[in-house]
Amino acid sequence: MIIVLEPTATDEQVNDVVKRVEEAGFGTRQIVGTGQSILGVLGTPLPDALYETMGLLPGVQQVIRVSKRYKLVSRDFHPSDTIVDVGGVKVGGNEVQIIAGPCSVESQDQILRTAHAVKEAGATMLRGGAFKPRTSPYEFRGHGEAGLEMLARAREETGLKIVTELLNPTDFDLVSQYTDVLQIGARNMQNFLLLEVAGRSNLPVLLKRGMSAQMEEWLLAAEYVMAQGNENVILCERGIRTYETMTRNTLDLSAVPVVKRLSHLPIVVDPSHGTGKWYLVPSMMLAGVAAGADGLIVEVHPNPDSALSDGGQSLTFENFAAAIPPVRSVAQAVGRSLRSGSVEAVAAG
Amino acid sequence: MIIVLEPTATDEQVNDVVKRVEEAGFGTRQIVGTGQSILGVLGTPLPDALYETMGLLPGVQQVIRVSKRYKLVSRDFHPSDTIVDVGGVKVGGNEVQIIAGPCSVESQDQILRTAHAVKEAGATMLRGGAFKPRTSPYEFRGHGEAGLEMLARAREETGLKIVTELLNPTDFDLVSQYTDVLQIGARNMQNFLLLEVAGRSNLPVLLKRGMSAQMEEWLLAAEYVMAQGNENVILCERGIRTYETMTRNTLDLSAVPVVKRLSHLPIVVDPSHGTGKWYLVPSMMLAGVAAGADGLIVEVHPNPDSALSDGGQSLTFENFAAAIPPVRSVAQAVGRSLRSGSVEAVAAG
Amino acid sequence: MIIVLEPTATDEQVNDVVKRVEEAGFGTRQIVGTGQSILGVLGTPLPDALYETMGLLPGVQQVIRVSKRYKLVSRDFHPSDTIVDVGGVKVGGNEVQIIAGPCSVESQDQILRTAHAVKEAGATMLRGGAFKPRTSPYEFRGHGEAGLEMLARAREETGLKIVTELLNPTDFDLVSQYTDVLQIGARNMQNFLLLEVAGRSNLPVLLKRGMSAQMEEWLLAAEYVMAQGNENVILCERGIRTYETMTRNTLDLSAVPVVKRLSHLPIVVDPSHGTGKWYLVPSMMLAGVAAGADGLIVEVHPNPDSALSDGGQSLTFENFAAAIPPVRSVAQAVGRSLRSGSVEAVAAG
Amino acid sequence: MIIVLEPTATDEQVNDVVKRVEEAGFGTRQIVGTGQSILGVLGTPLPDALYETMGLLPGVQQVIRVSKRYKLVSRDFHPSDTIVDVGGVKVGGNEVQIIAGPCSVESQDQILRTAHAVKEAGATMLRGGAFKPRTSPYEFRGHGEAGLEMLARAREETGLKIVTELLNPTDFDLVSQYTDVLQIGARNMQNFLLLEVAGRSNLPVLLKRGMSAQMEEWLLAAEYVMAQGNENVILCERGIRTYETMTRNTLDLSAVPVVKRLSHLPIVVDPSHGTGKWYLVPSMMLAGVAAGADGLIVEVHPNPDSALSDGGQSLTFENFAAAIPPVRSVAQAVGRSLRSGSVEAVAAG
Repeated sequence: MIIVLEPTATDEQVNDVVKRVEEAGFGTRQIVGTGQSILGVLGTPLPDALYETMGLLPGVQQVIRVSKRYKLVSRDFHPSDTIVDVGGVKVGGNEVQIIAGPCSVESQDQILRTAHAVKEAGATMLRGGAFKPRTSPYEFRGHGEAGLEMLARAREETGLKIVTELLNPTDFDLVSQYTDVLQIGARNMQNFLLLEVAGRSNLPVLLKRGMSAQMEEWLLAAEYVMAQGNENVILCERGIRTYETMTRNTLDLSAVPVVKRLSHLPIVVDPSHGTGKWYLVPSMMLAGVAAGADGLIVEVHPNPDSALSDGGQSLTFENFAAAIPPVRSVAQAVGRSLRSGSVEAVAAG
Repeated sequence: MIIVLEPTATDEQVNDVVKRVEEAGFGTRQIVGTGQSILGVLGTPLPDALYETMGLLPGVQQVIRVSKRYKLVSRDFHPSDTIVDVGGVKVGGNEVQIIAGPCSVESQDQILRTAHAVKEAGATMLRGGAFKPRTSPYEFRGHGEAGLEMLARAREETGLKIVTELLNPTDFDLVSQYTDVLQIGARNMQNFLLLEVAGRSNLPVLLKRGMSAQMEEWLLAAEYVMAQGNENVILCERGIRTYETMTRNTLDLSAVPVVKRLSHLPIVVDPSHGTGKWYLVPSMMLAGVAAGADGLIVEVHPNPDSALSDGGQSLTFENFAAAIPPVRSVAQAVGRSLRSGSVEAVAAG
Repeated sequence: MIIVLEPTATDEQVNDVVKRVEEAGFGTRQIVGTGQSILGVLGTPLPDALYETMGLLPGVQQVIRVSKRYKLVSRDFHPSDTIVDVGGVKVGGNEVQIIAGPCSVESQDQILRTAHAVKEAGATMLRGGAFKPRTSPYEFRGHGEAGLEMLARAREETGLKIVTELLNPTDFDLVSQYTDVLQIGARNMQNFLLLEVAGRSNLPVLLKRGMSAQMEEWLLAAEYVMAQGNENVILCERGIRTYETMTRNTLDLSAVPVVKRLSHLPIVVDPSHGTGKWYLVPSMMLAGVAAGADGLIVEVHPNPDSALSDGGQSLTFENFAAAIPPVRSVAQAVGRSLRSGSVEAVAAG
Repeated sequence: MIIVLEPTATDEQVNDVVKRVEEAGFGTRQIVGTGQSILGVLGTPLPDALYETMGLLPGVQQVIRVSKRYKLVSRDFHPSDTIVDVGGVKVGGNEVQIIAGPCSVESQDQILRTAHAVKEAGATMLRGGAFKPRTSPYEFRGHGEAGLEMLARAREETGLKIVTELLNPTDFDLVSQYTDVLQIGARNMQNFLLLEVAGRSNLPVLLKRGMSAQMEEWLLAAEYVMAQGNENVILCERGIRTYETMTRNTLDLSAVPVVKRLSHLPIVVDPSHGTGKWYLVPSMMLAGVAAGADGLIVEVHPNPDSALSDGGQSLTFENFAAAIPPVRSVAQAVGRSLRSGSVEAVAAG
């Protein structure tokens, strides 16, 4: 912590600041001669409240944080990349993973057909919501446990790993029986109880960025999970809220290199929520992989124009199958690989 | 719902749209001769998914919502103002209510002294957090039940009503034993389980606007509470996230007249979180009341420069006491009243 | 300037930073023993580029600005409030000024009728655009010089001072012949040539905040004007661009106390552009004055539903006349005054 | 235009709306039986003001635009891609163009060395500012005509085309003598005089998106240029202002496929301003090309840590040279090409 005093601060004010820091159990070092006193505070970690309260003392101009607020997620303490192993599917290694499926699990037939189609195109994981957060209380909120069973059946048939949202802490036992990855949705990025429940599990956690979360807050949310002992966190950029109305959100692809620089955790990109328009998704899939993402999570539906949710941003099977080969080419262009989808792969699954 | 077709849409495309609407169980009426076909869809309520999926059909240019997504919170269905009665303290009537107290309950002494001070100045309710949401997992998260007991003791001594946050659904039984108003924090505005738990209670609910929530989403969050049967919802504007860094949030006071126009629910303003700087709070208290707010919720602390949280935005007792008389004058200028704080009032409480 | 080095910075890296600062002509003082080296840089003013380039040197973690970027607009150098005198109408003194009129000057009749009506209600200045910035090239852009002449005629008849926009530097000679205040619009807040042209004039300048301008940038725009010798700058908060769609902009009333704290310049509030909806304007007029604004600038039109621009946010004469008395009450409640409507004008109206 | 009336609108109100539309010279068609009256307005183009004023009539719930506000920039009227020919360098064709150079032209040596270095790596155009917009009036604003001469000399030596900013309309004659492309900066996206001056030229125009411009406003700014007769417009996405502070702006790469869908104009991406951090630029160069951009504009400086502006976001020669080959691979992966660095240039370098 650095405390900068006003050029007009009195000696008494400076001494009072020093005394207050010492009362809090920390020491100071002072620079003089720069036109205003500057104090460096010794000791770590310093409590957050100290930053705020020191700023209130008479004569103080500003208080500056010089240490990071997160630790376990930081690359400083864990220089090598974390690879999250989802039952053999590795997120964060050389292979770019494709997670695909409908917004909501609507029926056994819908999820099975989708699972086969996305696997054939090259996906390694299947997404689908059984518990859905909805802005209005009058909309479809998912089939709950029945939806989880449909997902499990699709896993059985295809070998695809399952990614589904844990919406409420009270559903943890149920959801964790069925899924391979616990998804924490954007609205819940700061639902701290949910983060801690996920953190006490040993399942991989896919943590979506909140719709107005700063990257530091997102990393601190991941810190909540890791602080409970679960190191298997996958970050997911899904667009942030801005003034632009042409897209549902503004997909912030710079989050990919920022996260790679600050953290060892893998990051995937969600171009479906990131744009809200199916016809923008293929371009943003390419851009996400080019930016360095470890995977993509994409909404695919057999009949988007009959979907119970998010139809407008879902790809058809045909559009998804057509989108994957260019993604593979871009992955290779940046030194990554992407699994082949094929009849053989289906058989092998 | 209005469906606008492209000028280039074929008759077959128009017919297909009509057929799809009918399959969904609704009828259509058509305008022709405007250069492009325009369909009005008959029936209400229309499912949200229909808006999205109709937009995907070939030949469709745009789909327009003409009905509101919320009903119980709407002034259309409830023209007169709702007055929420908090044990005799009425929010939404002529009297402007002042809710004041520390961010966190830190000690019995702190909360008692604050309660007496704010009551003396004119407050009718006491705020204070026993369960605190914190961006970082390493910070003080409140004293929990012990904090609730301290609040109850302060109520006993002063007669002030208690407003405290319900952070997790699992704490409902505990918190509702102690508090007069359940606060739902900004981060939890779309924690739908929490909203429904609060909705099944008969306690008044103070619902903060999410930090990037559109007003429609906020009203829909209130609809979640009301849809469970609890009609005692107080909305709270607390600032939204913008690019401006001089303030912690941007206090959106236009929310006050917008909410008054669209809804019958009362609304209060939180200038402390809304600005993040104690020295901006008094001006924004005045502006909030002038804008038509039914109350203010303000952070007050005996020693902001020692506070365990939010010290930077908390008023001292002196500053709070000095801020109230001008608020009273402004309330009177706009035809409202504000209770006198006084020794008598303390005795009467 | 403070330069914070990484905890891992080598002595050589620290020395290199010191050397680079010295080469730029400045000295340093160092704090050691805080876990990382901290350098204070001596000398002022430091060039902006130095902040950026020092941050690029190996071993440097962050560079912190401790001095303000503006000087002439700062209250540090000019503690007392500036009062801008517009031909006897004083902006920034005890009296709150009401500036009212149509978005565009449409006809002599329109502007004359409006001038009489707003004067009667209590306005002291008349707004009206002769040169209009328009998002689309196909819309009405104002009557130009003819519009200025109509404004002059309205001034002659009513004595109201004129506020009109200077859109292009090349129109300066023309506009300055007619107007009492040069308005710089939000889109032109960083049109530096225009700012300097206005700065070389001795006419008062009303400088609107850009629609995504940080307050510091706005103050620096005022600094451009003042740096040319014109001290008569009036700031105008007119709403900023956010994700909220219920209002045209988000009126940021916290700008009023922030500006009052940082600067000596007067500030007025524009609730018409700030909300974009005529029915929200009266509440925001009250809130603006309660927040401490030195004036209001409000769109008023004889027939908003026939206006050539901004009809949706314009008040009718009746609505404007009804809005003023409560504004006067609020002004008085916060220790300010507001001129009475002219009896002569009433008679003439 | 569609006008939706309130469910409670009276016949008289509906008739009044119809009458007002007819008075404005347009006809209507009505849908009845949908619970509320819906009017389609016949005729095109409808004036913008009509949208606003119809919304003010009693009984009107909302007014909906169904036609686009721009025409010349629209793909509807010009289905095939525009290729802008900059003296033989084609922007918008198969080849992805790299525009590189310093923020400001600082000296003849700096610009010559940079020109050779970027050409060697594969750039086809040289950027560099001679007239610089600066937030503070106290900073370096470019060398003006001397800077233009230095650019011309660099063109002579390398054959690179020149891209430089036209900051003020009054500089047009001067700047257009020297440059191959007129750059309109983000701050000037709605400086309509400047747009029209550029539109009357026959030089290609690089139009940056304003820092808080919606894509529709940006397209309308391009419409201003085209409406004057200049069809050679290149759009440039350079990041938008959001609440995130980890990057200088948020690069909105979804603008690339949105623009490609709505318009025939080419679009390039500026990852330097888009991120503000040199170490994020290479990833965003890759992502921009993968998203479908027709070019990149990148800041490169011989010594970023001595740059007079934008040092923090400038690449060194080495970093730029290293960034290009992966960009070429990604370009090829998406079916585009990127010119090889000139052997001559290498020899000359």
